[in-house]
Amino acid sequence: MNNLLADLRIVEFSAFVAAPLGGMTMAQFGADVIRIDPLGGGIDHNRWPVTDSGASLYWAGLNKAKRSVALALDKPEGRELAKAIATAPGLGAGIVLTNLPPLAGLDYASLKAARDDVIMLRLIGNRDGSAAVDYTVNAASGFPLVTGPQPDVGPGMPANNVLPAWDVATGLYLSTALLAAERHRGRTGAGQEVVAVLADVMLAMVGHLGYVGDVRINGRSRPALGNDLYGSFGRDFATKDGRRVMIIALTPRQWRALGRATGLTDGLAAIGPRLGVDLDTEAGRFDARDAIAALVAPWCGGKTLAEIEQIFAGSGVLWGPFQDFATLVNHDPRCSTTNPLFAEVEQPGIGRYPMPGLPLDFSAAPRQPTRPAPRLGEHTDAVLSEVLGLSATQIGQLHDTGIATGPARL
Amino acid sequence: MNNLLADLRIVEFSAFVAAPLGGMTMAQFGADVIRIDPLGGGIDHNRWPVTDSGASLYWAGLNKAKRSVALALDKPEGRELAKAIATAPGLGAGIVLTNLPPLAGLDYASLKAARDDVIMLRLIGNRDGSAAVDYTVNAASGFPLVTGPQPDVGPGMPANNVLPAWDVATGLYLSTALLAAERHRGRTGAGQEVVAVLADVMLAMVGHLGYVGDVRINGRSRPALGNDLYGSFGRDFATKDGRRVMIIALTPRQWRALGRATGLTDGLAAIGPRLGVDLDTEAGRFDARDAIAALVAPWCGGKTLAEIEQIFAGSGVLWGPFQDFATLVNHDPRCSTTNPLFAEVEQPGIGRYPMPGLPLDFSAAPRQPTRPAPRLGEHTDAVLSEVLGLSATQIGQLHDTGIATGPARL
Repeated sequence: MNNLLADLRIVEFSAFVAAPLGGMTMAQFGADVIRIDPLGGGIDHNRWPVTDSGASLYWAGLNKAKRSVALALDKPEGRELAKAIATAPGLGAGIVLTNLPPLAGLDYASLKAARDDVIMLRLIGNRDGSAAVDYTVNAASGFPLVTGPQPDVGPGMPANNVLPAWDVATGLYLSTALLAAERHRGRTGAGQEVVAVLADVMLAMVGHLGYVGDVRINGRSRPALGNDLYGSFGRDFATKDGRRVMIIALTPRQWRALGRATGLTDGLAAIGPRLGVDLDTEAGRFDARDAIAALVAPWCGGKTLAEIEQIFAGSGVLWGPFQDFATLVNHDPRCSTTNPLFAEVEQPGIGRYPMPGLPLDFSAAPRQPTRPAPRLGEHTDAVLSEVLGLSATQIGQLHDTGIATGPARL
Repeated sequence: MNNLLADLRIVEFSAFVAAPLGGMTMAQFGADVIRIDPLGGGIDHNRWPVTDSGASLYWAGLNKAKRSVALALDKPEGRELAKAIATAPGLGAGIVLTNLPPLAGLDYASLKAARDDVIMLRLIGNRDGSAAVDYTVNAASGFPLVTGPQPDVGPGMPANNVLPAWDVATGLYLSTALLAAERHRGRTGAGQEVVAVLADVMLAMVGHLGYVGDVRINGRSRPALGNDLYGSFGRDFATKDGRRVMIIALTPRQWRALGRATGLTDGLAAIGPRLGVDLDTEAGRFDARDAIAALVAPWCGGKTLAEIEQIFAGSGVLWGPFQDFATLVNHDPRCSTTNPLFAEVEQPGIGRYPMPGLPLDFSAAPRQPTRPAPRLGEHTDAVLSEVLGLSATQIGQLHDTGIATGPARL
């Protein structure tokens, strides 16, 4: 976290991954991000992974450093309060982020009527308004049918990526878009409605990475290659002690380093003339990948991961071991507080564990302590008081009439 | 594309995916992004996928709408010109993006000496300066060992995601970071150095999604589940005509829609009491996923994709077919110019094909025509003239002495 955006206030109506990530990214830059949820919590409030007591580690992860307000969004009074918070005055306020169907009185036109320069960023699934989530968008993307081991002929079996990559990309487009729209407002005074489309994020990336052109210009598409790298040399190998490592040679320097470190320089060099390919090019190494692997595989298979680690250290070889979540979290020093990315944070209802801040360091904006996710409704009273100027009596009445709740009453 | 950032100039020294994507995102918002490459092109200039004539569809995809300058970066004169372009005056100029090791005279201190308020965003692999790329970072992330079909017991086989998801996420963090740093400079006059860490992007996401907490708090981690959704109901099913579909029920509404559309409501309802789980909860549907799938699988298997499409249309069921790249590009209307995301663009040296703009629509900044990627050095002369004010004679001398090249001479 840092304080670069500490003068901004963003009001978020959201669920799941993309929109909460977009808002959290702004919060990690210091913005006051107020997530407004219905009284019992949003539909992602108990999402997995959860603790044994049912608290959502997922919710805690994607709502860090936000403030939480719980209002009866199913009642006009609750929605009026939400609108008032979203459109309250202030140079850096009046910014709304949502991926939920607009509630009555909380659509762009209603918000704009209350604050002319409001910025509203809405994430939708498909452009035609139909639902789409990471899983359906990924199925359509083409990637699952070239991921994982695939049969040599005939239609493959899809392998879903476990990382919700389209949600992640979309979340980060949202933070970029909020900053671009706010910059425009700062220069012109004009707010606007911005619509982000989850399916279009996938389509844009398929295009950016060259796959649309591949089909349209070449009339073909990238084959399934298991774990091999497409268009250069990269493959996974087993070690003597049952681990697997990814070894890659993208650049001529990395290619020479691989030969040097493994002592296979001469054997690798002999492949070029034998197969008639130029191993100093990426395409040549790709064409010769099976022959390269035939030498590298026994070399790796004769050594433990620790031995390989020692040989490759400082050698210039581009490589890395595969590891599971437990090994990453318990044994990889990058995933610990020796890395300034992480701080041990006490998450109410869950406990103390390392939480990541921003994966960027700004020399003019030092890191601030990472803050946990709020409990649902933790900041209801503070926001009603600070942002709307309600008195303690008024706030008490909202509690009594079931329009607002704080964590103490949940 | 739009013109929201048309007053910004960003100078990019980059290769591969993340940094070029970060710069291109700014270019798609209208910024003047000048990518400076060595005379023969950067190490990604011929990257796959390529056309039959060897032109890189990948390079074309990730450098759209930028300007290209080719300079002899291996010579002091070439680096001086690059520095002068990077630090030229102008309110929105003086912003540098790179993922390459700094060349002599092009490090932050040198740039700052030439322009005190310069912003330099450097992407590195690991925080300790060691190399890391999407493949090695992904291997370390834990995701490949829970992706794809995995054995029930014992260590699994990794399945690499074919989408370079960490590069994509990093590229979009870069655009967010550039805007945050430029906003800060606009308010304070101060530039800064920003360092982004590819491995930290992965670590941050593993944390944000709850997996660090899962290991540290619960002492366990997400199991491999093939294509099943974790913590709710989602699975892929075969159709009668050999296609596969992903069917999901995240919300109670989607769950009821699935029963209604398939006519399986009663059968599905009977599962709850039989297994003693509450199917109105996500966790209940996850626990009962095999029993649910046992009813849905024969239903899907008895119908063609077209029949399923017709039955699910407008039903509220959350689903989508798996399709390969060719089907996506040739038959999915979302991946065509009927979607305003795409425009048919003539890419010099390659041909005409649909290129994506930004996956966001800004009501106050209408879409502008998508622009192709430049040929290497296409804008060398224009940039030397416009940005540095060099005369035609001076530019001619730079060509004659091999310091600068334009596309005509390549």
